[in-house]
Amino acid sequence: MQQISLEAKRHSLSHILAQAVESLYPDAKKAIGPAVENGFYFDFDFGDFDFKEEHLKDVEKKMRHILKQNQRFERYEMSVDEAHEKALNTEKNPYKVEIIDDLVASEHVETVSYYQNILPSGAAVYEDLCRGPHVESTSELDADAFRLDRVAGAYWRGDESRTMLTRIYGIAFESRADLDAYEKMREEAAKRDHRVLGKKLGLFTIDPDVGLGLPLWKPKWAMIVNTLKRWFEDVQLERGYMPVLTPHIGRKSLWETSGHWQFYKDGMYPPIELGMSLEDYQDNRKPSEHETYLLKPMNCPGHVKVFTADPHSYRDLPVRLYEFGTVYRYEQKWELSGLTRVRGFTQDDAHIICRSDQMREEFAKVVDLVHFVLHETFGFEVKTYISLRDPKNTEKYLGSNEQWNQAEETIQEILSEKGYTFAADFGGAVFYGPKADFKVRDSIGREWQLSTVQFDFNLPERFDMSFVNAAWENERPYMVHRALFGSLERFMGVMIEHFAGHFPLWLSPVQARIVPVSANFIEYAREVEQTLRDAGLRAETDDSDDALGKKIRNGEQAHIPYLLVIGEREMSDRTVALRDVRAKGQADMSLDDAISKLGEEARERRLGSLLSAGARG
Amino acid sequence: MQQISLEAKRHSLSHILAQAVESLYPDAKKAIGPAVENGFYFDFDFGDFDFKEEHLKDVEKKMRHILKQNQRFERYEMSVDEAHEKALNTEKNPYKVEIIDDLVASEHVETVSYYQNILPSGAAVYEDLCRGPHVESTSELDADAFRLDRVAGAYWRGDESRTMLTRIYGIAFESRADLDAYEKMREEAAKRDHRVLGKKLGLFTIDPDVGLGLPLWKPKWAMIVNTLKRWFEDVQLERGYMPVLTPHIGRKSLWETSGHWQFYKDGMYPPIELGMSLEDYQDNRKPSEHETYLLKPMNCPGHVKVFTADPHSYRDLPVRLYEFGTVYRYEQKWELSGLTRVRGFTQDDAHIICRSDQMREEFAKVVDLVHFVLHETFGFEVKTYISLRDPKNTEKYLGSNEQWNQAEETIQEILSEKGYTFAADFGGAVFYGPKADFKVRDSIGREWQLSTVQFDFNLPERFDMSFVNAAWENERPYMVHRALFGSLERFMGVMIEHFAGHFPLWLSPVQARIVPVSANFIEYAREVEQTLRDAGLRAETDDSDDALGKKIRNGEQAHIPYLLVIGEREMSDRTVALRDVRAKGQADMSLDDAISKLGEEARERRLGSLLSAGARG
Repeated sequence: MQQISLEAKRHSLSHILAQAVESLYPDAKKAIGPAVENGFYFDFDFGDFDFKEEHLKDVEKKMRHILKQNQRFERYEMSVDEAHEKALNTEKNPYKVEIIDDLVASEHVETVSYYQNILPSGAAVYEDLCRGPHVESTSELDADAFRLDRVAGAYWRGDESRTMLTRIYGIAFESRADLDAYEKMREEAAKRDHRVLGKKLGLFTIDPDVGLGLPLWKPKWAMIVNTLKRWFEDVQLERGYMPVLTPHIGRKSLWETSGHWQFYKDGMYPPIELGMSLEDYQDNRKPSEHETYLLKPMNCPGHVKVFTADPHSYRDLPVRLYEFGTVYRYEQKWELSGLTRVRGFTQDDAHIICRSDQMREEFAKVVDLVHFVLHETFGFEVKTYISLRDPKNTEKYLGSNEQWNQAEETIQEILSEKGYTFAADFGGAVFYGPKADFKVRDSIGREWQLSTVQFDFNLPERFDMSFVNAAWENERPYMVHRALFGSLERFMGVMIEHFAGHFPLWLSPVQARIVPVSANFIEYAREVEQTLRDAGLRAETDDSDDALGKKIRNGEQAHIPYLLVIGEREMSDRTVALRDVRAKGQADMSLDDAISKLGEEARERRLGSLLSAGARG
Repeated sequence: MQQISLEAKRHSLSHILAQAVESLYPDAKKAIGPAVENGFYFDFDFGDFDFKEEHLKDVEKKMRHILKQNQRFERYEMSVDEAHEKALNTEKNPYKVEIIDDLVASEHVETVSYYQNILPSGAAVYEDLCRGPHVESTSELDADAFRLDRVAGAYWRGDESRTMLTRIYGIAFESRADLDAYEKMREEAAKRDHRVLGKKLGLFTIDPDVGLGLPLWKPKWAMIVNTLKRWFEDVQLERGYMPVLTPHIGRKSLWETSGHWQFYKDGMYPPIELGMSLEDYQDNRKPSEHETYLLKPMNCPGHVKVFTADPHSYRDLPVRLYEFGTVYRYEQKWELSGLTRVRGFTQDDAHIICRSDQMREEFAKVVDLVHFVLHETFGFEVKTYISLRDPKNTEKYLGSNEQWNQAEETIQEILSEKGYTFAADFGGAVFYGPKADFKVRDSIGREWQLSTVQFDFNLPERFDMSFVNAAWENERPYMVHRALFGSLERFMGVMIEHFAGHFPLWLSPVQARIVPVSANFIEYAREVEQTLRDAGLRAETDDSDDALGKKIRNGEQAHIPYLLVIGEREMSDRTVALRDVRAKGQADMSLDDAISKLGEEARERRLGSLLSAGARG
């Protein structure tokens, strides 16, 4: 109920905003003004007037003034004909006319509702066509818990061919403390923005000639990703997964069999017409070989084809196939965002194909793996969400009742047995099976969906997957999709923001930099560098002519975890001044001790001083 | 001269073949009959007669009979008008008519040449329209050094819409010994055929729904490739290479800048029209975003873009970027062959970008790396071929004379300094730079082109690559392309045939199988398996109900390098009977010794008994 109430407050503030705008700019026409995440907005047509950020202050002042007036919010209804007449001739507001016409056309309503604001004197000072709900009175709205935020352009109905309106955004919370916390988080998030840090640290580049949403990974980033892949490959091999490698394109028939072409076409890149390019078509050329290929948006069909290439006995199961598979999905241009929303990305994709009696154990193992990776290895707080069938509407799902029941019970029982709390969304399951999603909470409080474990009752049917059971009959196996990082790109984007651009030592592309206090010690610095390299650490030497202070700042700004400062004394004693960049501390120790310390931290994949540094930013 | 003479012998044998066919099947019409690699063929139109393999014996017998007749080959010329008349009305051979007409149309000849066969009596017994050359007399042809091989269908002029002719293939060499050696090699090659072994050993599958030339890698194969990649990644990192990762698609503008679109279009998959599919075009739909993307046929432009994303100082060079980049090239359907000719493959691609004064050292390092990988690690004999400018026609090449001279001298000097002999092909260089290619000789004597090191004076210009030199001026760097395995798929195909489906221990997907003599020892077998696993070896247990002999045969047929047989005595003594499958030997030793032996062989990447086993097949 708290949530609904906050939404009502935000929505009510949007009306107060419109009331303030109307009193200051009587010619402005109102469009729409909903509550949104973290606040509200209202779209206006200011006509020829150029409303700018600098005008927000006056509007906000007016809003605070209104909030003190103890206005009541009051709902009343009107016939659609009257409403139409009012919008057209009294208000002369084409936006409201269109909204009313659309309501009639799409919902066949006969009446619409309005909300008025009434002063204690009984005078109505504002009204708007609105579904509500709202608070009862402005006295419920805390004038300290909101703020007008920014101004943006927004096309009427999001349609580029229609009028560009002016959108005023506000942020609003239950209390001033919540508002402050949000603003602080947002400020912190801006500092950690992976798009900014990714550029600053030289991790990736997006080149217009290569294409939007198709990042090129520079050496440092590729080093991190390759290290991450190797480790997770070992983790999977130890747990009985087997690698496969499948091509990035496949014939259209493959995607028709899988159903992606019918149901997911809009998310796929357009086809490659082999022997039949657009030019061939235009020139009326006859191809010698006409086949249609599609870039893979998912790895599933390839993995299924590896499974179905051979006969399987019940004794061969479970089969756990994994691949770091790069997939391509067509996202609209305006949906792209740094690494968290791209058009090409690499999934740590696996498919577990098992017997009915193996399902519990397999699901339990995956849940353990999720926690091992996200929590134990990367220190994230993990939250679990499960999506189940709508129990009142079971016929819209594929697969038998028995399968669904078994899968849904398994999910809930295993999570409960392991002591994980979870939020269940009845009716949230996709048509092909129930699933468990795992979100992480980052160091500034945001949640990110990473891991997913999904049952699939669809592809085994579509590809006629089978194994020979103990009774020598063909039996359909269970299949579970599983991705822990989800997309490596997205995970890395989240990790950058979580750790503010620092990385765990074991993943850092350069783990240590040797910083000689002057040019006299460069030779010894290289010797130290080699000693570190021989111990399996990724080290480099700062052989620049910079002053010591500059060298240290450069190392810090490059987010090198450890700087080994060496001079006369360090050379003669075979010691180093070890500077922990993330903890901002420095300690003198023998070179051997420094190497042991770093080696251990890297080998054991400890987060070390990273979490505190991440929280600090 | 030896080669030309053998070609003349083969060509002459094709005429003898036609003479024999004419005498046995007077209605057969001759089409064409050239010398080819390893022998010759002749295409005939047998009309309604169904010529089959079983008829070869008679033809071959007739040929041997002809060879004894000491026939002379004699050339004479005829005007094209006479020749046309002769082919049309005397021979009634439409194929010869077409050949003569084409010669007139394309080469504007006025006369054509014929070759006759003349008996010592002076009688002409055969003639054919032919350019020659031929031997002087059938006495020069060794009747023991040829054999008719097989019959195949062949479309006239290779055109599917024209008549299907009957092609008779013969094989022919200088001597019977060479013929025998060739047949033995071919038989051996058939046994080693990677397409057959790949299926038998469960390494890969080609699925019609995924597409021709697009193999799916099964777990065993993916395990080998992943292990190979890891090792070679380490090798490269040690040598100062840095990883990058670049997408599989890029905008057409990228491929226009690189020149691939203009010069390599036929080798590329057709474009992906974003927002403009063939269907959009057909339906006259207007796209919101129209961009053309292409699957990458090469990794170069991506690597160049990573380089040009940042400014570089002369101090940053050399920059060595590597990627296991999967590329897609459109090969004609009939050119595809197993793994050696595919449409999607992964290159171990690297680009070295350096200053002029670094070129020698960089080239030398790459040559060392080629020998380290191909010879020292995989035991191949390496042969070197270099391709240089045509010194008489230097204007058709891109880049300055100075650049070419420096690069060509570097290649020759470094190879000579290192003591490698090489064959130089003057005029064999591509337009953008000279190159060195490295071929390996496999265990049955065939040569395979694997590594290539190419200078490139083109892309640095096209992408305006530069670095700031010591004088603070922009300078164009040198760029070298380098691939050692070439294509991992092709390398693996070659390796399968070279080692007859066995793999070096360090690459074997399963390195050891524990074979309990009976079910009583399965538990102990699993303990042994775990001990091996703990020592970092990939081990499994045969827990089947099969008899011991069957289990051993299964292990051998699966090409598991080592079988550890255990029974009562082995369990009580903690020993194993270690069976070396490739050397076909068995020895009793302690479990610890067996683990040390295997661990050492794997760690040091020794070929062990593999070479002898590979040679044996």
